[in-house]
Amino acid sequence: MRQSVPLARCTRLLNHGPTVLVSAEHGGRRNVMAAAWSMPLDFAPPKVAVVLDKQTFTRELLLASGNFVLAVPPVALAALTEHVGGVSGRDVQKFSDVLAAAEPGPATGAPLVEGCIAWLECRRIPEPHNEQAYDLFLGEVVAAWADDRVFRAGHWHFDEADDALRSLHHVAGGHFLAIGNEVHYKPFSAD
Amino acid sequence: MRQSVPLARCTRLLNHGPTVLVSAEHGGRRNVMAAAWSMPLDFAPPKVAVVLDKQTFTRELLLASGNFVLAVPPVALAALTEHVGGVSGRDVQKFSDVLAAAEPGPATGAPLVEGCIAWLECRRIPEPHNEQAYDLFLGEVVAAWADDRVFRAGHWHFDEADDALRSLHHVAGGHFLAIGNEVHYKPFSAD
Repeated sequence: MRQSVPLARCTRLLNHGPTVLVSAEHGGRRNVMAAAWSMPLDFAPPKVAVVLDKQTFTRELLLASGNFVLAVPPVALAALTEHVGGVSGRDVQKFSDVLAAAEPGPATGAPLVEGCIAWLECRRIPEPHNEQAYDLFLGEVVAAWADDRVFRAGHWHFDEADDALRSLHHVAGGHFLAIGNEVHYKPFSAD
Repeated sequence: MRQSVPLARCTRLLNHGPTVLVSAEHGGRRNVMAAAWSMPLDFAPPKVAVVLDKQTFTRELLLASGNFVLAVPPVALAALTEHVGGVSGRDVQKFSDVLAAAEPGPATGAPLVEGCIAWLECRRIPEPHNEQAYDLFLGEVVAAWADDRVFRAGHWHFDEADDALRSLHHVAGGHFLAIGNEVHYKPFSAD
């Protein structure tokens, strides 16, 4: 069910603002955390931005390996997402031995967490000032994948799938909203 | 209906990843564009990040004035949002004379677009390298507002309001998803 997504379309996996899981691996150690603060940054080559608190173990692994994965967890992984993360990244050490099932990403070796609906394998773009001053990490997307039950031909198709496969959108304190349906509207005319 | 939101909670207006309208004013000229690529960056003081293409008139006004607003348009403004923007920012010049009704933000004077459900008034944090290399703009939030029909006591209450007040989440090419309902789940137990 995991299909390759062309890099030219990979920003569409994040455009709608889902909460993501950030995972990284170095020297046999791997970790995953949740992040509500991520976004695409460019189309070609595709880039992303994500905020990673200084205390997080995932940040340490990312810095050591130079690679990370942003994955989109669905409603079915709400409890896992709440457990391994939280927007602040505080207390993430306590999750360092909790990891969802994952396999190494073909492009980077960073973990692809099972049960997610999209994955972007990224190489860190070193920007030490952003990382130190803002906890802001940039990455170039080098491979992207999606579950074809909900993402096909460059578009999300949540309406047609099980609601448990909808993306999660964190508000605060473990409260998530699920993504809804496509909006139908009459295009604006300036005339 | 527009109520002040405490700065300590203002990141909650963007945590769930809505598409935003970016507006700015300088010397009597004002503009608005849409951006799918924005995110909170910090809690205290609250900061945000947004990607603004080099051709955009809004970017010019932001740089000249040092202020901007990120506003969250609801489903009712889907056509307007599609018309004034698009994720790439290309061709935005043609919208420079199209502006939704707006009044000056009390804190910055930047336009608060009418009909949105949340507004964050921001002061640019000058980071010329990010702006030039990545079109990435950072801002400190100095005032925040929300429509109390959908955001009260620090939380979104979309379930209880008209569906036309749900936030918009852009995928590509004028296709938007609306935000859905709260996710109910059983918290994870490691035991």
